[in-house]
Amino acid sequence: MPIASDVSLGRDVRIFQPDLVNLYGCTIAAETKIGAFVEIQKNAAVGARCKISSHTFICEGVTIEDEVFIGHGVMFTNDRSPSSVNPDGTLQTEADWTVVKTRVKRRAAIGSNATIIAGVTVGEHALVGAGAVVTHDVADYAIVAGVPARVVGDVRDRREMNPVATTPAGLPGRERRSVPGSDKDYT
Amino acid sequence: MPIASDVSLGRDVRIFQPDLVNLYGCTIAAETKIGAFVEIQKNAAVGARCKISSHTFICEGVTIEDEVFIGHGVMFTNDRSPSSVNPDGTLQTEADWTVVKTRVKRRAAIGSNATIIAGVTVGEHALVGAGAVVTHDVADYAIVAGVPARVVGDVRDRREMNPVATTPAGLPGRERRSVPGSDKDYT
Amino acid sequence: MPIASDVSLGRDVRIFQPDLVNLYGCTIAAETKIGAFVEIQKNAAVGARCKISSHTFICEGVTIEDEVFIGHGVMFTNDRSPSSVNPDGTLQTEADWTVVKTRVKRRAAIGSNATIIAGVTVGEHALVGAGAVVTHDVADYAIVAGVPARVVGDVRDRREMNPVATTPAGLPGRERRSVPGSDKDYT
Repeated sequence: MPIASDVSLGRDVRIFQPDLVNLYGCTIAAETKIGAFVEIQKNAAVGARCKISSHTFICEGVTIEDEVFIGHGVMFTNDRSPSSVNPDGTLQTEADWTVVKTRVKRRAAIGSNATIIAGVTVGEHALVGAGAVVTHDVADYAIVAGVPARVVGDVRDRREMNPVATTPAGLPGRERRSVPGSDKDYT
Repeated sequence: MPIASDVSLGRDVRIFQPDLVNLYGCTIAAETKIGAFVEIQKNAAVGARCKISSHTFICEGVTIEDEVFIGHGVMFTNDRSPSSVNPDGTLQTEADWTVVKTRVKRRAAIGSNATIIAGVTVGEHALVGAGAVVTHDVADYAIVAGVPARVVGDVRDRREMNPVATTPAGLPGRERRSVPGSDKDYT
Repeated sequence: MPIASDVSLGRDVRIFQPDLVNLYGCTIAAETKIGAFVEIQKNAAVGARCKISSHTFICEGVTIEDEVFIGHGVMFTNDRSPSSVNPDGTLQTEADWTVVKTRVKRRAAIGSNATIIAGVTVGEHALVGAGAVVTHDVADYAIVAGVPARVVGDVRDRREMNPVATTPAGLPGRERRSVPGSDKDYT
């Protein structure tokens, strides 16, 4: 049963391929859309009117507020020191770690193939570029891109499509386009 | 039904796990192979004798010409400003955006976990390294790698397996191997 | 049949969603856990007490030793020059390539969305950061991160959670946190 009985689904949640997802113990609020090959773990919460695109993994400890866009192949994490076993070689269980929490605030957008390191907060209206690895908090309205992700712009300045930004190190003489982007909505 | 009735499949297309893909409204030409956990959206076109490897997402507006290799976990995009809702908070629909088109030309190869930003063209015989984020057009025969992807070689010069290239910034004294690669074909 | 009859499964292997994986011709040793949307090809070997997280692809030629943690969306590769067809335009078959082997040694951990280029060895207890692209061997106990992955620390020095490391180029005056991380274990 890829949608476990303990999942809380709000009104008009749309799951396009219910046999091709793995949802358990999570909360999904009203009108959110969920693509194929998505896994959402227990104790994760997704707000209303979000889009969670295909191939994305949302782990325990992640809170996604309302009206957030999550691209394809986005991976959240909740442990900065993952391990299969304890030092004595026994398999780790829930007693052996503490979940590090992550929050994505209202109307943020996270591009495809981005990786979100445990413990960060992505601010309201912020835009995380496709393929970015987010290791620090992202301010409201910031555009970040790269590995590790650095600020390359502000969504409020963004009337043109391809903002030009300085390099991560701020060196003069090089320019770098931000790399936001994802696919269009499912219809 | 993970393969929708409106999919156009050419002669001898091979889909190894037809219950574990999500294909709809797309065109797949003759002899192409498609791995597990692949999603291909409406108005995407894949040429003949291509390999589309597992976990890859091909979105609306993408054209892949003949004899192209697409690795595993490759994410295409078609929108540089993704959003879940319109400024007034209503869910976005197809009327609210324009698809930005992407083209991968004949015999190109795209390495695993690469991200292709909306609007680029990847040239004939070009090679995109695994894990690259492609933000600009890639010339015919070019090898690109990194985030953002930069030219690190030319496939016509490549008799040895691991080309050594200068750094993205062209600084002397550092060398960087390109990071192409993917898995072998499905048999 | 997403778990082929030729898969060798050790004692107490746990596959959480057996209808949502694609395993064939591989060997999985005792007590290992495998998440949803995982593909493991023929002639791949996974040791005992490992965790193979969702959305991960393990290809032919990969050996994973005991007690290894593999995060979500990790892509292994086995070919540095992937191609769909031979120069004469015929589809490639097994006779047309040599698998390049990759090894992940005991108790290593690989963060989510990492890409492992064919031919590398990841040492014992090593930690590969989330989103890294590993192009060279990783020494025992090393922490690596970035694209391409560079050494940013040593797990034996790591009592605090977020090690501060020099930049990949070793430039003074900038600091970069490593970007390891993955999600917690499946329970």
